[in-house]
Amino acid sequence: MSLPRIVITAGEPAGIGPDVIVKALQSDITARIAVVGDADLLKRRANMLGIACDIQKLDIPSEVSAHVPNRIQVLHTPCLDDVVPGTLNIANARYVITTLERSASLAQDGVFDAIVTAPVQKSIINDSGIPFSGHTEFFADFFRCEDVVMLLTNQKFKVALATTHLPLRDVPNAISKDGLCKQFRIIHRSFCELYGVEKPRIAMLGLNPHAGEGGHLGKEELDTLIPARDVALSEDIDVSLPLPADTAFVSEAGKCADVILAMYHDQGLPVLKTAGFGHSVNVTLGLPIIRTSVDHGTALELAASGKASEGSLLAAINEAIVCAHHQA
Amino acid sequence: MSLPRIVITAGEPAGIGPDVIVKALQSDITARIAVVGDADLLKRRANMLGIACDIQKLDIPSEVSAHVPNRIQVLHTPCLDDVVPGTLNIANARYVITTLERSASLAQDGVFDAIVTAPVQKSIINDSGIPFSGHTEFFADFFRCEDVVMLLTNQKFKVALATTHLPLRDVPNAISKDGLCKQFRIIHRSFCELYGVEKPRIAMLGLNPHAGEGGHLGKEELDTLIPARDVALSEDIDVSLPLPADTAFVSEAGKCADVILAMYHDQGLPVLKTAGFGHSVNVTLGLPIIRTSVDHGTALELAASGKASEGSLLAAINEAIVCAHHQA
Repeated sequence: MSLPRIVITAGEPAGIGPDVIVKALQSDITARIAVVGDADLLKRRANMLGIACDIQKLDIPSEVSAHVPNRIQVLHTPCLDDVVPGTLNIANARYVITTLERSASLAQDGVFDAIVTAPVQKSIINDSGIPFSGHTEFFADFFRCEDVVMLLTNQKFKVALATTHLPLRDVPNAISKDGLCKQFRIIHRSFCELYGVEKPRIAMLGLNPHAGEGGHLGKEELDTLIPARDVALSEDIDVSLPLPADTAFVSEAGKCADVILAMYHDQGLPVLKTAGFGHSVNVTLGLPIIRTSVDHGTALELAASGKASEGSLLAAINEAIVCAHHQA
Repeated sequence: MSLPRIVITAGEPAGIGPDVIVKALQSDITARIAVVGDADLLKRRANMLGIACDIQKLDIPSEVSAHVPNRIQVLHTPCLDDVVPGTLNIANARYVITTLERSASLAQDGVFDAIVTAPVQKSIINDSGIPFSGHTEFFADFFRCEDVVMLLTNQKFKVALATTHLPLRDVPNAISKDGLCKQFRIIHRSFCELYGVEKPRIAMLGLNPHAGEGGHLGKEELDTLIPARDVALSEDIDVSLPLPADTAFVSEAGKCADVILAMYHDQGLPVLKTAGFGHSVNVTLGLPIIRTSVDHGTALELAASGKASEGSLLAAINEAIVCAHHQA
């Protein structure tokens, strides 16, 4: 079996991205791994953390070799200004975007199987004049994918989201029959390809409490969710009737499912993160490449302190490897 | 210390209420306990379950004595028609309401300290022509309490709800500054009185994902939640800033709090029920009496089968006892 080829983006340079990369790559990981970022920044951050590691600039991306603990192969992409851990510098916003573009191009060209992203700071990128609403949207644009699905996964649960980062008030109108049908197809195909599931079972949560209780607590289940499910069943995609969210995760239907589809952010993620915070992974479904991410932010106050845990990054790398093997 | 006096309502006669009462009262429980319901129904259900118990009709409610395993003291309230386990009978809807009224009167008169309710079937009560939207609303009406707060509790979490059973679409407009302030006061006073907490700490979740992210993902935190918190602080009530729901339950603020206040049903209850389904208890805060309830429904298909677990009812009785001791 050939070794999966993973490219990691170093994320916001003032945040904990460089820290967790240096810490994670002390481990023995069975993959070819390269980091897109500033090699000198990684070296300095490693020194600050007291970690002895061999930072190697890699000139030809396709020559990335098997990972060896404490040796970091870097596709050097220089920062544009000084980096002070914990202090955002607007002059480096363009650098962050460049690392994303470079990793996406390399994956598009087939040089890497998967992109793993360290956290970025949306606000500073936007403040610099570059429109940016998140990694997921960036890659969806880059690969011209109109529809992608955000999946959060850990050792206990896999939760996909029908809507992601929007005000609660806007959630009900953001859910449509056609939109759900597209999401069912993406989830179905992704679970076949990335997780090797023959016939994925999707447990769909209701939008309303008690899944609308037959229309007494909201009509969307009857008007939108169930009609979308009927389309899915006609396409041989296994989607449950809308389940009451409060009991779904411990119900038979939920426990037997390969993935739980929550209708919105705070319906699905509190359970998942309470069950395994620090080791959750964000996977973007629907892209032509594999993309996984840590589930934490830049944690500026922890940069260079040694206190940032590499657990989520290791989990994200591992998830990318699992998916790459299934896809191979 | 005097023994708490607990009255249990037997709930929908065709459901598992009688089953779990008979099973739960096999246990040694340190309280005076009486059941409001049909004594003959309880006797028949015990026989069906193969449980030998002594059903004693209690003529004078105030003479309720300390509970002895397998002896059930009943304030006999006859059903109005035949009871077939698993089959709803509209002729018995009035009986269910009578048990609630009788228990509420007895608690109001100071004969009992706490009411523990077995599940009822809302639909059959409404179908019979009696308007009924739930136990909580029934008792709030009975005791003329304009504002009550629903608290769900188990061994891991205590979660109060700012809104309960309404369509998701209606949630944002149902949350107001004044309403939250009333809820903070009820929660604060209840945790002092019922749980003996000197200065209760309330961890408030944001309404929007990431608690609105400074206004980027919704304005309610800035316009409503934080102003309500400012009022609370001025009244010496300890309420947190709005916390992102996905990480609140495992955050320091969440773990140090006495209670988490979720803004709506499916934001708070999935975490709680996933962490301890079957042993969660529903407590109504803001009534002049203690009221706790099981967290499950009538489970008609399990009635008389012996498969219904008494765990939640035992937990509800225990919670009532704990609260009664604090209040004494």
